Amino acid sequence: MISARKGTGLFPKDNWMSTVEKKNHWIGLDLGGTKMLATVYDADFKPLGRKRRRTKGTEGAESVTSRIVRTIGDAIEDSKVEPEQIVGIGVGIPGPVDQEKGIVLEAVNLNWDNVPLVKLLRSELNRPVVLLNDVDAGVYGEYRFGAAKSARTALGIFPGTGIGGGCVYDGQIIRGKRNSCMEIGHICVTPNGQLCGCGLRGCLETEASRLAIAAEVAKAAYRGEAPTILNEAGTTLADIRSGVLADAIAAGDKAVQRIVQRAARVLGIAVASSVHMLCPDIIVLGGGLVEAMPELYVEAVSSAARKAVMPSFVDTFKVVAAKLGDDAGVLGCAAWAEKTFAD
Amino acid sequence: MISARKGTGLFPKDNWMSTVEKKNHWIGLDLGGTKMLATVYDADFKPLGRKRRRTKGTEGAESVTSRIVRTIGDAIEDSKVEPEQIVGIGVGIPGPVDQEKGIVLEAVNLNWDNVPLVKLLRSELNRPVVLLNDVDAGVYGEYRFGAAKSARTALGIFPGTGIGGGCVYDGQIIRGKRNSCMEIGHICVTPNGQLCGCGLRGCLETEASRLAIAAEVAKAAYRGEAPTILNEAGTTLADIRSGVLADAIAAGDKAVQRIVQRAARVLGIAVASSVHMLCPDIIVLGGGLVEAMPELYVEAVSSAARKAVMPSFVDTFKVVAAKLGDDAGVLGCAAWAEKTFAD
Repeated sequence: MISARKGTGLFPKDNWMSTVEKKNHWIGLDLGGTKMLATVYDADFKPLGRKRRRTKGTEGAESVTSRIVRTIGDAIEDSKVEPEQIVGIGVGIPGPVDQEKGIVLEAVNLNWDNVPLVKLLRSELNRPVVLLNDVDAGVYGEYRFGAAKSARTALGIFPGTGIGGGCVYDGQIIRGKRNSCMEIGHICVTPNGQLCGCGLRGCLETEASRLAIAAEVAKAAYRGEAPTILNEAGTTLADIRSGVLADAIAAGDKAVQRIVQRAARVLGIAVASSVHMLCPDIIVLGGGLVEAMPELYVEAVSSAARKAVMPSFVDTFKVVAAKLGDDAGVLGCAAWAEKTFAD
Repeated sequence: MISARKGTGLFPKDNWMSTVEKKNHWIGLDLGGTKMLATVYDADFKPLGRKRRRTKGTEGAESVTSRIVRTIGDAIEDSKVEPEQIVGIGVGIPGPVDQEKGIVLEAVNLNWDNVPLVKLLRSELNRPVVLLNDVDAGVYGEYRFGAAKSARTALGIFPGTGIGGGCVYDGQIIRGKRNSCMEIGHICVTPNGQLCGCGLRGCLETEASRLAIAAEVAKAAYRGEAPTILNEAGTTLADIRSGVLADAIAAGDKAVQRIVQRAARVLGIAVASSVHMLCPDIIVLGGGLVEAMPELYVEAVSSAARKAVMPSFVDTFKVVAAKLGDDAGVLGCAAWAEKTFAD
């Protein structure tokens, strides 16, 4: 029985610092707006146990904190590892964090504002905890173990409802003044274009997110140009998910294919801007949309980006699909804990 | 008499490595397309001696190399420092370099292509030499000693004939796969806009460089809307220099002021993209155009950038004018030599 369930602290307060070498296990926890996932890894980042749980963000920060503690406890139980063998824990947050202070600056999906999560967790978990942004965690996971392994500069882009981005440079997650940057979804691609959720106009998100694609596809379905969509999802944006888009393309809905490819090309133009600025060697595309149609999407982004960079940059970068799926986030969290606490 | 002039090597081949502490002087050399500048600094980066010389790039890499050696020799002579007191030399190059291999990859102004400059210099200068891009050197100089002192992320932008950029993050010059990045001048600001020298369309340079401004101002002068310009420079682009633009604005040529402010606003929009990606705390604007009208220019860039970023980024950055002028480059070179060789 894991003691956290009794509220007496998950980990014994032993003299663990002196025996780090023997206790080289790590935990990653990816906190999402609707669910959380914890995984226990050994020193080679082989997964030994895991647990998913609903987040229930509306119940407030203390309730979520205790759900995190229970999820970590369950993952340890699943792994058969002794709690004392855990050296550190990385927690991925859907929003910007202050890593030094251990504070979640903002998490819109959880309605959190300046939550001192590390302090809250440390009173239950007698182990070091580090926070990082969830997109940064995913890019770091792909950098350490996936599609961007050993890149000097790895740029990750995850199109979904919005478009998230992150960058690992020389083994470090690039964090700007705001502690989480790479808001590539809000680069302006169409001056005076459509209104974005952020209040600006013509942001990349307004033309290339899954939501933007769904809206265009719904219009096409309404006009009778996308029969598979009309049949499977109607014109309800929430139902036009990545899998439905892929099905429609596979079934021959040409309008859907053109809309997705056009969105990918617009993303490619934003990628070109990022190449001019950072000259990444690898650009990893991830998320449900990419997973549902990796070849079509990666090819469209890559060729559009190549057409939009200066000649001397054409051969400097590769665009690839993410390899680790949902594991990228938890792996990145655990590996960041290792980088932070193992030195 | 400096022995380099006799071709026998500038520095004695002594056992200098063991006595680095006593010999803590550094040299920066900024190699431009038309002239070079070398400065000798003490350990506190106080300048002790300097020398300018024409580059004469058309005479080839070996000739330029020997001019560099002589210029460094003259600067040492001017400084009254013993050659043995120099620990290392940083050389700024107008183009991308491979720092590890010590090669100038390309320098269009010098017609250089893959020149092994460090090897060439090392046979004459018995001291460690490191190459860096000249814009990177300028940004690093401002980061160490000027307007961007102690920024976590310092972005430098230098509008001239083109628009150069560089970024220092956590004390490191960010270099991408191509070894020199931050080509902010080639971010697309106007889809399908004017043709750029790089072959793309609508690059920032086509709308916001000094050259782009000069072309617009020449049109205004031709139409009779810029009498001071017509009087001082006519409609010849090469004569419409930064100082002339500043004079015309001071004399009340409203059209010139509007053209410069519009270019600065377009630059501000590109700055906003860089803020979304890197979230720099300080953005330094430098070069002749900025020096000629710092207040007008910085204010226009800053307010345009602030209008074009997401609300949560509005207060994260400062836009400032460079402080060090031409010294930024040589200082940055010398300080980068210190960072490279003093550890």
